[in-house]
Amino acid sequence: MLGTMLYAPGDIRFEEREAPRILKPTDAVIRVAAACVCGSDLWPYRGLQPINGPTPMGHEYCGLVEEVGNEVKRIKPGQFVVGSFFASDNTCLICGHGYQSSCQHREFVGGAQAPMLRVPLADGTLVSTPGIPPDELIPSLLATSDVLGTGWFAAAAANVKPGATVAVVGDGAVGLLGVLSAQQMGAKRIIAMSRHEPRQKLAQEFGATDIVVERGQEGVERILEMTQGIGADSVLECVGTQESMMQAIHSARAGGSIGYVGVPHGVALSGEELFYEHVHLHGGPAPVRAFLPKLIGLVLERKIDPGKVFDLRLPLNQVAEGYRAMDERRAIKALLLP
Amino acid sequence: MLGTMLYAPGDIRFEEREAPRILKPTDAVIRVAAACVCGSDLWPYRGLQPINGPTPMGHEYCGLVEEVGNEVKRIKPGQFVVGSFFASDNTCLICGHGYQSSCQHREFVGGAQAPMLRVPLADGTLVSTPGIPPDELIPSLLATSDVLGTGWFAAAAANVKPGATVAVVGDGAVGLLGVLSAQQMGAKRIIAMSRHEPRQKLAQEFGATDIVVERGQEGVERILEMTQGIGADSVLECVGTQESMMQAIHSARAGGSIGYVGVPHGVALSGEELFYEHVHLHGGPAPVRAFLPKLIGLVLERKIDPGKVFDLRLPLNQVAEGYRAMDERRAIKALLLP
Repeated sequence: MLGTMLYAPGDIRFEEREAPRILKPTDAVIRVAAACVCGSDLWPYRGLQPINGPTPMGHEYCGLVEEVGNEVKRIKPGQFVVGSFFASDNTCLICGHGYQSSCQHREFVGGAQAPMLRVPLADGTLVSTPGIPPDELIPSLLATSDVLGTGWFAAAAANVKPGATVAVVGDGAVGLLGVLSAQQMGAKRIIAMSRHEPRQKLAQEFGATDIVVERGQEGVERILEMTQGIGADSVLECVGTQESMMQAIHSARAGGSIGYVGVPHGVALSGEELFYEHVHLHGGPAPVRAFLPKLIGLVLERKIDPGKVFDLRLPLNQVAEGYRAMDERRAIKALLLP
Repeated sequence: MLGTMLYAPGDIRFEEREAPRILKPTDAVIRVAAACVCGSDLWPYRGLQPINGPTPMGHEYCGLVEEVGNEVKRIKPGQFVVGSFFASDNTCLICGHGYQSSCQHREFVGGAQAPMLRVPLADGTLVSTPGIPPDELIPSLLATSDVLGTGWFAAAAANVKPGATVAVVGDGAVGLLGVLSAQQMGAKRIIAMSRHEPRQKLAQEFGATDIVVERGQEGVERILEMTQGIGADSVLECVGTQESMMQAIHSARAGGSIGYVGVPHGVALSGEELFYEHVHLHGGPAPVRAFLPKLIGLVLERKIDPGKVFDLRLPLNQVAEGYRAMDERRAIKALLLP
């Protein structure tokens, strides 16, 4: 089987590697209907996160179940399924609290930028659709796997309530789908922070009521001006740098909440500063599994169209171009079709 | 008037200073019924927080209103009142959200370790009791002013729910009243972390179901053992050091919450570590004003007895001994009677 490997910063190869197979009786193997490149894939691609030798890439997926291990009960061959980046048993105490991405038995699912994928803990991890969905919904179903699930968690972690004023830091695909999520949760005002016209436009299609082009301290000041000087009720942090995190923290009002889902790289927070900012801080790897049934339902009912974030479609064997286009910000998010 | 001044680390003086008077039409002057020494007073007393010259000390108070400015409408001379360390207008947007300690017009109230005290923004800051309370309730009413209000905020910020498992880091008066607060909020299991027998005993009187004497990483491991390996739902951080903050963060389960009210001194948090700990973090200066009506009611109905934290009673002119006794941990909290 041909699959995507990262050898070194900037060095993506689509090459022969061993086909996935059932290794544990709780595994499934799925035939990938569509995969994509994640913002978090760019960290190692840019050399900002080390890798231990050649690494199979991709952790967003949906597709048809090809085979299941003999302890898999709920998931069956032939079903169309969506999973997410952490396999979870969905039965442990932590899963019971709705934090499947910290499941006591979690395993990272890697290698999805390929035609076939092994998914551990299949019964806990995968959610099947009723019947086989039409092709035109595949991009949106794929989006639920990570990028929408993560934007949704950002909004939930930021405690978005009906009527709220929300600011979104980061105009990548997660930030844009954070806008969509806040809109679904009933936010009244959604301020997207973006200086890129195509992204601003998509943010508005997803429900942004305002655009702020400034960033850093200037961005904070614009948010304060727009909120009678107090800051937003909820701020979604969808980048993961020191600057974006501080921009998010300073943009929230006292008693407000920051939901942060950009994997922090080199971020250090002063306890004393946080204390006087008086904000709620919550984030981490999104427990996408908890949201999948709802998000898949919204897609199948055609109430949301998160697949719009894919502004570049490539055959899977051109995956390297997908990385390049996202790295150079020529594309918001690249869809890969086997 | 004689009042308490801090001149330098360890140098508390009870000496002549100008009597407080109405400076703004929104002020009140109160005759202090009782005052006390706060854990946070010990930071500058120990030289761990700089002061700008001789500083009037004390920010916990209750007493009789002596005089009000001509714009004060709600508070009247002769009333018995409780206030807290930040004066707040209780009308601004931030007060409306229940975060009076970040009021847009807040002022710090200093100099309460004295017979008389000026309180700014009297209408917003002070809460009066129905009639004059009996003397034996004065310590508990004083406790609502800060130490109970702060313990209450720790529990609220840690999202304590009925049935929850709660851990409390810090066995100072705030931590002990955090135990009482968690108990009032319906926690099922309350683990007090303390190695001091009199404090353990008081924690148990306030509702602690378990005592853990270990601290740091050993303390974390004990909490994990007691919670089927996952950690507590809610953790109250009532100290403010790097060690106590990390102990609190590591003691919470994924998806759990830390309420931190110990003023952080030199605390730095790694964004990446917080991300993977998957916890909620909230804290800051307690918005005591939001809680005062409820807490005063509980005291007057004799449902709670937070005044038990005062295990040392001194005449106000012996205030220096109060600081010494708390610094040396001979006393949990010193009550000062004018």
